[in-house]
Amino acid sequence: MNEKVGFMGLGIMGSAMAANIARAGYPLLVFNRSPGKTANLIALGAQEAATPKALATASDITFAMVTGPEALEELLWGADGAAEALGPGKTFINMSSVTPRFSEELASRLAPTGTAFIDAPVSGTKKPAQEGTLIILAGGPQETVDRLIPLLQTMGKKVVYCGEVGQGSMMKMAINLLLGSMMEALAEMLNFGKMGGLSMDTVLDVIFSGPLNCGLFQMKAPLIREQDFPASFPLKHMTKDFQFVVDTAYDLGAPVPTAHMMLHLFRLAVGKHWGDLDFAAIWKLLEQLGKPQT
Amino acid sequence: MNEKVGFMGLGIMGSAMAANIARAGYPLLVFNRSPGKTANLIALGAQEAATPKALATASDITFAMVTGPEALEELLWGADGAAEALGPGKTFINMSSVTPRFSEELASRLAPTGTAFIDAPVSGTKKPAQEGTLIILAGGPQETVDRLIPLLQTMGKKVVYCGEVGQGSMMKMAINLLLGSMMEALAEMLNFGKMGGLSMDTVLDVIFSGPLNCGLFQMKAPLIREQDFPASFPLKHMTKDFQFVVDTAYDLGAPVPTAHMMLHLFRLAVGKHWGDLDFAAIWKLLEQLGKPQT
Amino acid sequence: MNEKVGFMGLGIMGSAMAANIARAGYPLLVFNRSPGKTANLIALGAQEAATPKALATASDITFAMVTGPEALEELLWGADGAAEALGPGKTFINMSSVTPRFSEELASRLAPTGTAFIDAPVSGTKKPAQEGTLIILAGGPQETVDRLIPLLQTMGKKVVYCGEVGQGSMMKMAINLLLGSMMEALAEMLNFGKMGGLSMDTVLDVIFSGPLNCGLFQMKAPLIREQDFPASFPLKHMTKDFQFVVDTAYDLGAPVPTAHMMLHLFRLAVGKHWGDLDFAAIWKLLEQLGKPQT
Amino acid sequence: MNEKVGFMGLGIMGSAMAANIARAGYPLLVFNRSPGKTANLIALGAQEAATPKALATASDITFAMVTGPEALEELLWGADGAAEALGPGKTFINMSSVTPRFSEELASRLAPTGTAFIDAPVSGTKKPAQEGTLIILAGGPQETVDRLIPLLQTMGKKVVYCGEVGQGSMMKMAINLLLGSMMEALAEMLNFGKMGGLSMDTVLDVIFSGPLNCGLFQMKAPLIREQDFPASFPLKHMTKDFQFVVDTAYDLGAPVPTAHMMLHLFRLAVGKHWGDLDFAAIWKLLEQLGKPQT
Repeated sequence: MNEKVGFMGLGIMGSAMAANIARAGYPLLVFNRSPGKTANLIALGAQEAATPKALATASDITFAMVTGPEALEELLWGADGAAEALGPGKTFINMSSVTPRFSEELASRLAPTGTAFIDAPVSGTKKPAQEGTLIILAGGPQETVDRLIPLLQTMGKKVVYCGEVGQGSMMKMAINLLLGSMMEALAEMLNFGKMGGLSMDTVLDVIFSGPLNCGLFQMKAPLIREQDFPASFPLKHMTKDFQFVVDTAYDLGAPVPTAHMMLHLFRLAVGKHWGDLDFAAIWKLLEQLGKPQT
Repeated sequence: MNEKVGFMGLGIMGSAMAANIARAGYPLLVFNRSPGKTANLIALGAQEAATPKALATASDITFAMVTGPEALEELLWGADGAAEALGPGKTFINMSSVTPRFSEELASRLAPTGTAFIDAPVSGTKKPAQEGTLIILAGGPQETVDRLIPLLQTMGKKVVYCGEVGQGSMMKMAINLLLGSMMEALAEMLNFGKMGGLSMDTVLDVIFSGPLNCGLFQMKAPLIREQDFPASFPLKHMTKDFQFVVDTAYDLGAPVPTAHMMLHLFRLAVGKHWGDLDFAAIWKLLEQLGKPQT
Repeated sequence: MNEKVGFMGLGIMGSAMAANIARAGYPLLVFNRSPGKTANLIALGAQEAATPKALATASDITFAMVTGPEALEELLWGADGAAEALGPGKTFINMSSVTPRFSEELASRLAPTGTAFIDAPVSGTKKPAQEGTLIILAGGPQETVDRLIPLLQTMGKKVVYCGEVGQGSMMKMAINLLLGSMMEALAEMLNFGKMGGLSMDTVLDVIFSGPLNCGLFQMKAPLIREQDFPASFPLKHMTKDFQFVVDTAYDLGAPVPTAHMMLHLFRLAVGKHWGDLDFAAIWKLLEQLGKPQT
Repeated sequence: MNEKVGFMGLGIMGSAMAANIARAGYPLLVFNRSPGKTANLIALGAQEAATPKALATASDITFAMVTGPEALEELLWGADGAAEALGPGKTFINMSSVTPRFSEELASRLAPTGTAFIDAPVSGTKKPAQEGTLIILAGGPQETVDRLIPLLQTMGKKVVYCGEVGQGSMMKMAINLLLGSMMEALAEMLNFGKMGGLSMDTVLDVIFSGPLNCGLFQMKAPLIREQDFPASFPLKHMTKDFQFVVDTAYDLGAPVPTAHMMLHLFRLAVGKHWGDLDFAAIWKLLEQLGKPQT
């Protein structure tokens, strides 16, 4: 419990996750590239590091939870990057959503430093991040993952060992393929039902009474009903993940027709300037596609 | 309870539903176009009618649960069809999956006979049909639906009033759009995960631990894991329903990009001769698409 | 040359085609379901028949060129339908766009009358119809087709023998799959280029200088450039043909991913009320999809 | 005419293009990353440079024609890269297919050297490259492009000025969107027609007699008919270009539904190990998708 922890990336997810580490009593250093995100965490006892390098220097275990490869690149190998400070006896954990290929590249590039590395992206968005009920998808040497379980469990209700480095990211890709496809399918069917004259409440009653009922629909249907889309998981991030999915599928030779369709639809929605809304706002694209013109 | 009931269409769904009517104590006449489907029901006290007309003549309430418009056309207006025997004081209930437009046409064609008509397709496949836990999606005059609730509840755990005639079918279309899309998305992600080196059991563990968990995936994942697809809901019927969905969407001007994609994929699977397997066998299409060739 | 000819269906295509028959000197009877379409043809010496039956009675060779199966059904088997008057020694030629399956059904239903039947849809739209430069895609007994060549050549520059009855329609489906896909691809790329800052004239210059240059693009690019879409081939008819294509593909087990996508897009365009514009107006859908929203 | 020219990248396209520069009498230095590609050019009087830097040092005008951004990166900024030797008075011309965004980045990175830069990708594949009949799509300062026209015309029959730097690449993306979509549509319709019983020769006769006839189909139909796909334009390069197209479309907010579908299909074909065949081999994917299974 006296391992010193560093956490880089304090967005919607990262700030909630870091808070749970702090609440569990770990000494915590935090860093965010854009300023003004740390007050909350400092109130919980965390300290702010001046640079990624300073953070990694002072930490036994360094986490990153950022928007993707570019941000990771900068935090690790940019000016005053964390990589300089990583080495034997230290552990680096990437929780950001990236491709398996990128995870493997990270592993290769970090290997010469002698630092331990695992990829550990999460399933779950804002609320489970706040409540510490994420599912953590870990890839890397099993003994490293096992050793980290108590720390990871401050953030998640479950740590799933997925395989070697990169397999955590692979699992994340698979889960998000399903997540985004289900979201769009719900939006498409609700819009279809509405245009067909059905009451949305009645449609939802039918869904919630049968085998299609799930937590996702329970969470997202109200956003569509209220036409209000505060972001738990921004649409632009879902879009980025679909790009990762189709790229990963291409590396594997795996057919992902629906993922390609979804990438197309979510990208169109970003083009409409809805990228900062919750990904349930894919509804808005379907609604607009159905509006007659004259 | 002493209404006499007739039931036409004794396939996977119809035979299970009729059995529940019989078990509830209603006097029951049954008819199926192809022979050899009635032994089970006769054992429960039902009698077999020689023709649809004979069935409708002897019944207060006549049900049809068949594969679609062509079969309904024949049962109602073919040789010795039921329509000749329908009239004031009698009720006809179509539970088959058809488009809202076809339901409205049925209503128009039956109106001159003076018979009461509702459309009441169901959500749920083989198992809930057997257990009497279907969700019944009823469209028609509300007082007619209300009067029929005790009888309908012998087959389903819930009767949802969807609106005027045709709205039961509209609800069915919406539900099946979601059902088929979720099934394909699960198959696509499981195949993607498998090709990416993940254990299917681990993937399912992650799904079942989070907000994507639902009864459908609980039921269908084992079929994919075991590569065995006995039909609860035949793939060819899902395909037909997607055709109804896209046709209905066209009538409405509703955008259904995913439904079009699914129609394409399920039709390809039927073309591969997998139409009689459960619709979870869409997995087989994805598996085959991903096989490298030389 | 003294065969008496009847022509049913005087839309954009039919009226131009019938005019060429009249100009070639054939005695010509015409019929159209909605009135007011015959003045032009009467000026060329044609006479108007009161009913399809009257037309077929007085004609050796009866043509139909209508919007599809429903119209054919009515002209042949509706009140005072032509079928009653068909028989040995007479010939019926369907030039309307229908599925191969429907052509085969027509053949089966007409067979008992003893009339000769061929399907002979056309490749080409308004202008070649007016100029008599259509390509006629004929299916049926080869000797029947051969006998009709002089008459068919009044309407077309080329008669292509495609095979048994239904194969003319099969060819038409294949050609229209390519036609509609190329049209949408042109519209998609022109909109993409425009949004990327290219001059449309420069893009067209590049297309017209290379191996993608074709008559279709020469004809349709000006409509897109001028944003004016008078119908040579109405978008709603292209949509109907894509439905026929995907249905035929399903009968054959043939994969038509692009046709499914096109059906989706063209149906959306019809939903926007652009069905009566030329099918080049698929451009408008792409333009609208790309408009940002706030 | 006494400008010294350097040409890097001697694949199918580059070697043919460099040969035309040599034949026109320009002093020519060539370089290729993998060895053994220069004999032909040396026979035409060219000399081989030891490194990209050596090539750029000795040349007034340096061309690159490689497979994409990674190769360019290496040639320009790798060990002994050309960028070190570029400077005022020299010109660098990228003819490789890249995104507009990448072209603009190249321009920005080269700007500090003071070298002139244009992007000049080409429309046309192996045969027009050999015959010097490519269409050259040039972006950059108009006076720079104008000055280079005599040199560019050794490789192409036409130089189209597309706009500022990046617009040549934008034009290339637009053209290749249309190119790939037309190729797939042809393959899809030929397979559909074949499965429907049509003779491929007859289908081609109809295409070649009407407004869909174009140089592309004249070139590619024989490959499909003969089931032999020697690469003029490898399928894997078409796939890469579709990735560039959808990425560029995303930057622009442009809807490219067909490009997304094509990316999916071409990637599946690469996954089948057909990436080194000509892109007409997309036919093989459609053929396989249509094969029934038992």
